[in-house]
Amino acid sequence: MSMATPQTAKLVAWLDAFSHALATGDVAQAVALFGDQCFWRDQLAFTWDLQTLEGRASIHAMLEATLATVGPSTWTVADAAQRDASEGFIAFDTALGRCEGYVRLASDGRCQVLLTSLRELKGFEEPRGPRRVSGLEPNPRNSSAQAEQPYVLIIGGGHSGLGLAARLKMLGVPAVVIDRHPRPGDNWRSRYASLHLHDPVWFDHMPYLPFPDHWPVFPSKDQIGDWLESYARIMELDIASSAECVSATYDEAADAWQVRIAQAGRERTVRPKHVVLATGVSGEPNVPVLPGATEFAGQQHHSAAHPGGEGFAGRKVVVLGANNSAHDICADLFGHGADVTMVQRSSTHVVRLQRVLEFLQPLYSEEASARGITTERADLLRAALPLRVMPAVVRPAMERVAQEDSAFYSQLAAAGFKNDFGADGTGIVGKAMRNGGGYYIDTGASALIANGSIKLKAGVDVSRLDRTGVVFSDGSRLDADCIVYATGFRPFTETIAKLMSPEVAQRVGRVWGYGAGLEGDPGPWEGELRNMWKPTPQPGLWIHGGNFQWSRRNSLLLALQLKARFENLPVNVYRPR
Amino acid sequence: MSMATPQTAKLVAWLDAFSHALATGDVAQAVALFGDQCFWRDQLAFTWDLQTLEGRASIHAMLEATLATVGPSTWTVADAAQRDASEGFIAFDTALGRCEGYVRLASDGRCQVLLTSLRELKGFEEPRGPRRVSGLEPNPRNSSAQAEQPYVLIIGGGHSGLGLAARLKMLGVPAVVIDRHPRPGDNWRSRYASLHLHDPVWFDHMPYLPFPDHWPVFPSKDQIGDWLESYARIMELDIASSAECVSATYDEAADAWQVRIAQAGRERTVRPKHVVLATGVSGEPNVPVLPGATEFAGQQHHSAAHPGGEGFAGRKVVVLGANNSAHDICADLFGHGADVTMVQRSSTHVVRLQRVLEFLQPLYSEEASARGITTERADLLRAALPLRVMPAVVRPAMERVAQEDSAFYSQLAAAGFKNDFGADGTGIVGKAMRNGGGYYIDTGASALIANGSIKLKAGVDVSRLDRTGVVFSDGSRLDADCIVYATGFRPFTETIAKLMSPEVAQRVGRVWGYGAGLEGDPGPWEGELRNMWKPTPQPGLWIHGGNFQWSRRNSLLLALQLKARFENLPVNVYRPR
Repeated sequence: MSMATPQTAKLVAWLDAFSHALATGDVAQAVALFGDQCFWRDQLAFTWDLQTLEGRASIHAMLEATLATVGPSTWTVADAAQRDASEGFIAFDTALGRCEGYVRLASDGRCQVLLTSLRELKGFEEPRGPRRVSGLEPNPRNSSAQAEQPYVLIIGGGHSGLGLAARLKMLGVPAVVIDRHPRPGDNWRSRYASLHLHDPVWFDHMPYLPFPDHWPVFPSKDQIGDWLESYARIMELDIASSAECVSATYDEAADAWQVRIAQAGRERTVRPKHVVLATGVSGEPNVPVLPGATEFAGQQHHSAAHPGGEGFAGRKVVVLGANNSAHDICADLFGHGADVTMVQRSSTHVVRLQRVLEFLQPLYSEEASARGITTERADLLRAALPLRVMPAVVRPAMERVAQEDSAFYSQLAAAGFKNDFGADGTGIVGKAMRNGGGYYIDTGASALIANGSIKLKAGVDVSRLDRTGVVFSDGSRLDADCIVYATGFRPFTETIAKLMSPEVAQRVGRVWGYGAGLEGDPGPWEGELRNMWKPTPQPGLWIHGGNFQWSRRNSLLLALQLKARFENLPVNVYRPR
Repeated sequence: MSMATPQTAKLVAWLDAFSHALATGDVAQAVALFGDQCFWRDQLAFTWDLQTLEGRASIHAMLEATLATVGPSTWTVADAAQRDASEGFIAFDTALGRCEGYVRLASDGRCQVLLTSLRELKGFEEPRGPRRVSGLEPNPRNSSAQAEQPYVLIIGGGHSGLGLAARLKMLGVPAVVIDRHPRPGDNWRSRYASLHLHDPVWFDHMPYLPFPDHWPVFPSKDQIGDWLESYARIMELDIASSAECVSATYDEAADAWQVRIAQAGRERTVRPKHVVLATGVSGEPNVPVLPGATEFAGQQHHSAAHPGGEGFAGRKVVVLGANNSAHDICADLFGHGADVTMVQRSSTHVVRLQRVLEFLQPLYSEEASARGITTERADLLRAALPLRVMPAVVRPAMERVAQEDSAFYSQLAAAGFKNDFGADGTGIVGKAMRNGGGYYIDTGASALIANGSIKLKAGVDVSRLDRTGVVFSDGSRLDADCIVYATGFRPFTETIAKLMSPEVAQRVGRVWGYGAGLEGDPGPWEGELRNMWKPTPQPGLWIHGGNFQWSRRNSLLLALQLKARFENLPVNVYRPR
């Protein structure tokens, strides 16, 4: 064992030992190089799946099942400067592809975290940079034939759908995006005027085309909308606009979908091998059916349909909900002179925008770029944090936030606002992965709540509406001219049930969440986001989405999976027994 | 003098001596640091003009006139690695701005070439990268007010006009582009289908937004067209589309233009301080009036209006001209089954595409990028070659081409094609700067001429047309169904005369050319392209254009000149007596 456990935490020594063990087929030797608490997060390289293997036994089983066919080789430390460090980027090959990853060693020289991730398939490299074509030869791609019967149908043309379509275009996989809007970007343009990204610009780049360097830290919804339209055009994506997917049925015999598409008053059927749902994992707007809703004489709409504060001056608006959209809409309405009340039914996590910038700053910022941390490297570093250990890393940071911003939180509390940091103390980080919401990144509304500009009804629910207002569970009542339901979205599984069938929805099961056993994310533990960007239990069905960062990074992994199938490569998805 | 002439060709030593001489106001000392054959090419830093000063006397006079007000300081070698080299990039400040440049020393340690170029104005830095705004504050720019009465009116929304508008947007100078097409990019979309850029993609980037790295080496006209439309949207440019400039009159009393613009059947007048002509320095299509042209029963059009070869199968087409467009159109017509004859009236310079790639490769290529030569640095290096010494550098390269491609040229000659390398032997390089044409970059038509697929009538002119064909000066005759006039464009001065007045056109004088005293570019020697990107004799009138490289680079210099005037900075344009 002396050779198998190098005595200093030197990356190059560990990788040499690991590489040697794998090359000789010695699984036990390879597994002995991992520490007692160890994680191997694999993204397609070994498992053709997104999996985090926890502990030596799981790693052992996976290697036994995969090593012979995967054929890993030529492991190297990617940066010479990291050879003698205890962590760093690595690169290696498999029989099918070129891979990248990250290793983090414990002080005893054994591995705590190994990330392995497929980057490209051999023989199917993207035609970029030195591989670009001259452009004078005839174009072998026939866009119109593709558009008739694509190999992949992507439903939804937001940032996720377009980014994936671009990846597939680069890989030469025939794909069509269908979207219900007339133009790409309309999903952003049609929202309220004050909407901005709440994540900073460095975090949000899409594949291939970085945002311009003069863009603000928080791009506006119109900048994003126009970007998406330009992106689709520059990447020469095949998009069916103003089109709806009516139904999608999987034909087991043909191993293909039959998808009915309604466009311009006509219906047609396409038969893609794969359907990717990229409509946003939030599902349809969730509008609670309140007693008296039909009696209420004023205006009612969901936050997703809120037109913005223009025209609401002097009007009484009740906003149900206390997450991001509710705050944005309340601030915007107040700014336009409305009399606004936010109804906070349960506790919310609020974090100041500045803190989000600080969290992301080491990986996504001007400073990070200047230090040579490319967007791709930042994404790999994020992936190198297994979800099991995430709380131990994030919780202390959140405790510091609570302390440093205690005055901020005290003022919110004094106004009656109920704040929390999540059941595991990881605040926005855990909530985003468990629920995709339940928080507000403060861009100014919190101060308006604290000083009473936005009125607050907290800890109550709405009992019913009457003709002119809202009656609460504590018996109090408010006049209202308008009610905005910032009440979130239905589970995504309902979208699948509606589009495909309840049976398919049941087969697929929950979407998003990682089985934390907390706050709307029940177990069992998964350690990865459920059904996202990886094979689902329904053949030919894939789910893509998430914020810009998730979409950017995982569109690569999803595109590689589709490309491998398109080229009939031997794809063996490993499943632990 | 010992200190003033360092004995080794070490950049840092020379720059220290130069800097010391300037700091102490010792012009004689500074001038003594230049060699017997020396050039100082200044771009705004000292002269607020684009000038190449040739010889010590010119440099002396310029420094005497400018040094006190310019206030140059903090001269440094930009790359530490170049400190002991004999040439390299430099940086320095003036009272008003931050500047960059390049120095090339002779073996005796004295300066052969000094390039000095303004990069940004102090206090008016572009809001990019670390200077980007958060995006949450209200936007101080009021686009609609700008659009009503801009400070700068740019006539023409091709790559030149849009690139300049983007520069001005970044600098906060209110500018509007008027363009006669409905959409940006239509000037490319409307051309024949086979049109590509004949310069490689690395040479062609526009300001701020690099082309995507999957683009082919030679982008197609539709890729360029769509790019321009996306560019205008992403850069949030103010464009008046489907608009024509009816007339422009300079109001001496108000120091402003009165420009009548026709758009959507209405006319309005705007009063910009500055008008930039960015319609392309080629002027209007030149259609010779041939005897019998009205009698000819077939189709006739200028190359700029040529629709492409579709529909010409089996038809007899005569193309007058033998430059780029003529070749492209002939090859396209032949590819569509037409019976094509090219009429070459005078000699043309043909160079194989591969040679153009090789010329540009050291500065503009994947390899150059990999060596750290950014587009900006490549542009500076190009500018560091004074036009007076250009032939000595370019002619030997062309002689090598003639030798290495002797079989190619022999085959063309055997087909009767008349080739030349320009009056000074600099081929495409000199012709582009003297005439903006007179050459063909071969993308395949030459082989078709050599093998007779494209028929050739060389050394003759057209005497007249009759009802069914063309009669040549040697008495021969050809039947024709269609005549394409690939006969170039009128002098740009006619465009100015038409738009402004003959008096303004006369005041401005020749546009383009550098006074070579050769081939349509009469003297006197100018050493810079006439009236391009710099103050013209007509107050408030500027001319912008050129290929993508010229436009990219010089749009910065033109934008800085306009910004300095917009901010009422003390701009003293130096003119030699």
